Amino acid sequence: MNITQAIADTTPSLISPPVTAKSPSNRNPVKLGIMASGSGSNFEAVAQAIASGQLHAQIQVLIYNNPGIKAVTRAEKWRVPALLLDHRNYKKREDLDAQIAQTLRQYEVELVVMAGWMRVVTPVLIDAFPNRIINIHPSLLPSFKGMRAVEQALEVGVKITGCTVHLVRKEVDSGPILIQAAVPVLPNDTPETLHTRIQVQEHRILPEAIAMVIGNW
Amino acid sequence: MNITQAIADTTPSLISPPVTAKSPSNRNPVKLGIMASGSGSNFEAVAQAIASGQLHAQIQVLIYNNPGIKAVTRAEKWRVPALLLDHRNYKKREDLDAQIAQTLRQYEVELVVMAGWMRVVTPVLIDAFPNRIINIHPSLLPSFKGMRAVEQALEVGVKITGCTVHLVRKEVDSGPILIQAAVPVLPNDTPETLHTRIQVQEHRILPEAIAMVIGNW
Repeated sequence: MNITQAIADTTPSLISPPVTAKSPSNRNPVKLGIMASGSGSNFEAVAQAIASGQLHAQIQVLIYNNPGIKAVTRAEKWRVPALLLDHRNYKKREDLDAQIAQTLRQYEVELVVMAGWMRVVTPVLIDAFPNRIINIHPSLLPSFKGMRAVEQALEVGVKITGCTVHLVRKEVDSGPILIQAAVPVLPNDTPETLHTRIQVQEHRILPEAIAMVIGNW
Repeated sequence: MNITQAIADTTPSLISPPVTAKSPSNRNPVKLGIMASGSGSNFEAVAQAIASGQLHAQIQVLIYNNPGIKAVTRAEKWRVPALLLDHRNYKKREDLDAQIAQTLRQYEVELVVMAGWMRVVTPVLIDAFPNRIINIHPSLLPSFKGMRAVEQALEVGVKITGCTVHLVRKEVDSGPILIQAAVPVLPNDTPETLHTRIQVQEHRILPEAIAMVIGNW
């Protein structure tokens, strides 16, 4: 039921608010937790999509693992709490992931967005948020899983690559695909120029994928 | 040198033909051999590209392996000799490939085009035409190598797939990529509807890839 229908259904008592629980405008903003390891440009894209009204959500917390990264500055600008959880301080991946899961719960996060998180995550985190963790990867999966996806694409010599947003499963870069975008490889591309062109598409499809997931709740 | 330039350069002796050795119009048409296992729609696309002048080539022979396929009717229409080399009549892949290589040589083929050839080829054929065999595959390689590429794409749930023309090497579907085209996967796609949409792009990029290879000779 959209607003127009709600009004039509409730005439003449136009004062009454629509009561459709599923309408986005009637639901509280979905609480996001974002995980980043680098510049945080995807964090920025999500924050801007929220500010522009494209996304009915709010960012509760940024979790990052590398001290001094630019993502922190962005979080400050958007007044989002930024928490450093440095993987070098944990003996095992599972210990870090347990701390991440606990932090996300403290901030009442409903959807976890791995937006350039350069660590393999374990079932300790995945099972804490079943079907509630999404990841963005700089290739058209299933091509070029894992690290160095952009470099791999150039080494293989593909003419088209891209990016993928998918649900996170225990196998790395293998969960159900939500959205993909294609990006042409140009003759003189370096990893940097190609990655920059891929990121333009990442910043477009990541908010779209979040909206898609939220829209199905 | 194009015709207009030739005329300008040679005035007033308009009768003299242009003499630029590298001009495509001065080279004999490149002699193609096409290998197909099915409908021959890519054969048709190449024949039309030649007829329209997009491609300076001629099809010397169609080699096919399945009796009664539609590709034969197309070959008749275009007055191209069609030769059945049925893999079921050969004990080993190598025996079939030796016969194919001999046939291609008899027809003085310069470039071999696997246009829907559904058999793995061996070094017996590959080494007979080094860097002179191209293949078209219905996926964005390196995703979905081998058989059932369209079905694989639907099973994995990618949102973008496509097609690839590449040079043939001994590893299946792994040679240097010449051209790729991206094709969106739609929500209700079946293998048939998706394959049909991919083939539209195949018919576009296969002649382009042949022109690219020829242009570098």
